[in-house]
Amino acid sequence: MEKNQNKEEEVEEEQQVVNPWKVEAKEGGKIDYDKLIDQFGCQRIDPSLVDRVRRLTSRPPHVFLRRDVFFAHRDLNEILDAYERGEKFYLYTGRGPSSEALHLGHLIPFMFTKYLQDAFKVPLVIQLTDDEKCMWKNISVEESQRLARENAKDIIACGFDVTKTFIFSDFDYVGGAFYKNMVKVGKCVTYNKVVGIFGFTGEDHIGKVSFPPVQAVPSFPSSFPHLFSGKDNLRCLIPCAIDQDPYFRMTRDVAPRLGYNKPALIESLFFPALQGETGKMSASDPNSAIYVTDSAKDIKSKINKFAFSGGRDTIEKHRELGADLEVDIPYKYLKFFLDDDTELAHIAKEYGAGRMLTGEVKQRLIQVLTEIVERHCRARAAVTDEMVDAFMAVRPLPSMFE
Amino acid sequence: MEKNQNKEEEVEEEQQVVNPWKVEAKEGGKIDYDKLIDQFGCQRIDPSLVDRVRRLTSRPPHVFLRRDVFFAHRDLNEILDAYERGEKFYLYTGRGPSSEALHLGHLIPFMFTKYLQDAFKVPLVIQLTDDEKCMWKNISVEESQRLARENAKDIIACGFDVTKTFIFSDFDYVGGAFYKNMVKVGKCVTYNKVVGIFGFTGEDHIGKVSFPPVQAVPSFPSSFPHLFSGKDNLRCLIPCAIDQDPYFRMTRDVAPRLGYNKPALIESLFFPALQGETGKMSASDPNSAIYVTDSAKDIKSKINKFAFSGGRDTIEKHRELGADLEVDIPYKYLKFFLDDDTELAHIAKEYGAGRMLTGEVKQRLIQVLTEIVERHCRARAAVTDEMVDAFMAVRPLPSMFE
Repeated sequence: MEKNQNKEEEVEEEQQVVNPWKVEAKEGGKIDYDKLIDQFGCQRIDPSLVDRVRRLTSRPPHVFLRRDVFFAHRDLNEILDAYERGEKFYLYTGRGPSSEALHLGHLIPFMFTKYLQDAFKVPLVIQLTDDEKCMWKNISVEESQRLARENAKDIIACGFDVTKTFIFSDFDYVGGAFYKNMVKVGKCVTYNKVVGIFGFTGEDHIGKVSFPPVQAVPSFPSSFPHLFSGKDNLRCLIPCAIDQDPYFRMTRDVAPRLGYNKPALIESLFFPALQGETGKMSASDPNSAIYVTDSAKDIKSKINKFAFSGGRDTIEKHRELGADLEVDIPYKYLKFFLDDDTELAHIAKEYGAGRMLTGEVKQRLIQVLTEIVERHCRARAAVTDEMVDAFMAVRPLPSMFE
Repeated sequence: MEKNQNKEEEVEEEQQVVNPWKVEAKEGGKIDYDKLIDQFGCQRIDPSLVDRVRRLTSRPPHVFLRRDVFFAHRDLNEILDAYERGEKFYLYTGRGPSSEALHLGHLIPFMFTKYLQDAFKVPLVIQLTDDEKCMWKNISVEESQRLARENAKDIIACGFDVTKTFIFSDFDYVGGAFYKNMVKVGKCVTYNKVVGIFGFTGEDHIGKVSFPPVQAVPSFPSSFPHLFSGKDNLRCLIPCAIDQDPYFRMTRDVAPRLGYNKPALIESLFFPALQGETGKMSASDPNSAIYVTDSAKDIKSKINKFAFSGGRDTIEKHRELGADLEVDIPYKYLKFFLDDDTELAHIAKEYGAGRMLTGEVKQRLIQVLTEIVERHCRARAAVTDEMVDAFMAVRPLPSMFE
């Protein structure tokens, strides 16, 4: 049992709610990530850990790691210890395919996972929880499966290596060794426990209650006999947004009882909405996010119109006080996506001192995002159905550790 | 919603509890089957319905049907209406493989299903719920699977036609279309609802909560695309003991919301323990039942020693009052297994009038059961692993309706 056990209720009292279906800061404020770390019982990633990743991979850490986008972890040091001893691990991440168009926030775990795969040279499994979305969003099985394949194209467009990557949809893949692990996990978790972790009520359907084991078991190599047969001790590292932590707290709790390793985690904060940092972006408001399907014109117009500025009301005041970088969305977005540390530091300095105006920063952000989105669109357009089939084929990956 | 909905609590108040895991009569008395029919909301099988089966199949109804062993049903008339119009149906039954040695009570649904298959010339699916037993009995996945295969041999020994019969274990077969139907069913059933139906508590593990859809979906032909592809309207008839009714009440409730037919049911009472008719036989007491692995000597000794007699304390009293056939186990067992109606009527008359003694009736029962058990043993010994593989292969059954 990890530290978090009796913390769930507190979360509610304190009005900060973070679970896989709801991210809500206290009284409309910002998510308090320090409190979240404390509540969930995970660890903050400190500079020495980032340095260790740099040393072990012999390459600069990803911008998301350098800038605390991936800011928390569980047992990352243990994974690195093992890696240093020459043991490999595998990566596991996923997506609930609820909508056709992904926004930039959706891409963050995949961009980061792609870096981890390249840096550590390890295999990767990507779960598309079409079953979950079918149950939670009340869309049909067929529509969930269609969305899963569409989302797979966006994921593949992030540049994953087909010789090291297995993408699967639950509707396709649940069964056999995977289902056996689901049953083993289900046996170890009481209903009261999932109510504590996920906040289910008696009026929730049993499909929801049945789901946590489905997301848990890709953490165990034995769920993928075509990949990891005979490698039951292979460790698993899960890059994900921190709202997914409840699933893996449960998984880590159960793992030793099944004789499995606990998965390690590396967890990101939430990508803020254009309107300001009060939580995750909302799929119901297309103006709250930049979508990978947005045109250059859309991006320009959305940022100019909606990106919340930390600049001051008048130029005079701005020159005097400087921008409030703590709330400024254009600057925050650049922190995620402007790779050049020197340039970012320059912007922070100049904008923070009032010598640079919001318009200029927005201009730079529009350039950066337009380039990213256009690159993604080109890559996605090149993804054929045959490539999707290739990534999703149940097959061995003989060179996955090379 | 069927009649039973708010009857569950009453069952508890009245101290008669019948669900898939517990069969308990009121204050140690007999199960009140009339009350059960009323509580569950099913129908009694009347002589005219038995006659209809005789007419439609052009053969004598099975002894279990003639003698009210299968005594209750849901929509059996609708299945027969359809059959009369030339529509076929399929049979679905199952077993939770919790023990190696089956007793006679376990064979009853299979003996009866074999008759139904022969009489109606219809395909049959048999579910081995190794996942359920792994979760409820706390046995390992591997042991559950081993037991499932062992039980499959006993089932095959009942004489099923391999060209019309598909036996599957959940651990092997859950996935694909079957899993999609599980998700569809799970979406339609709230946690409160399964608590009402099955009596789960918050301390029960979520494996249990997840299970009802697994037993529900073999009722839908789309769960078996290799058998029934394109036959989504094929009706399903489920022969089972009445303690399984809760699963299928739930299934029937959900079916129309998914655009599926409700399965029909034909339900048996419980085979009484040797010690008397207070419920089902108990696996924990080997002397409460005749096992298919019992030797002739075992059978003789168990019946002579443990079969509860309705005979009187002294020969004089017995000659005067006759046996109480209402409680006499040797006579009750003969009602299940002595095929000859004339002989059974003769025994009832003579034994009931005190002209026949318990010893003589036991003698006849020992003959009957020894013959059945020996026949079963011979049949089971002839079942090879290849035959089990053949029955369990996921394959089309091209001549299943012939």
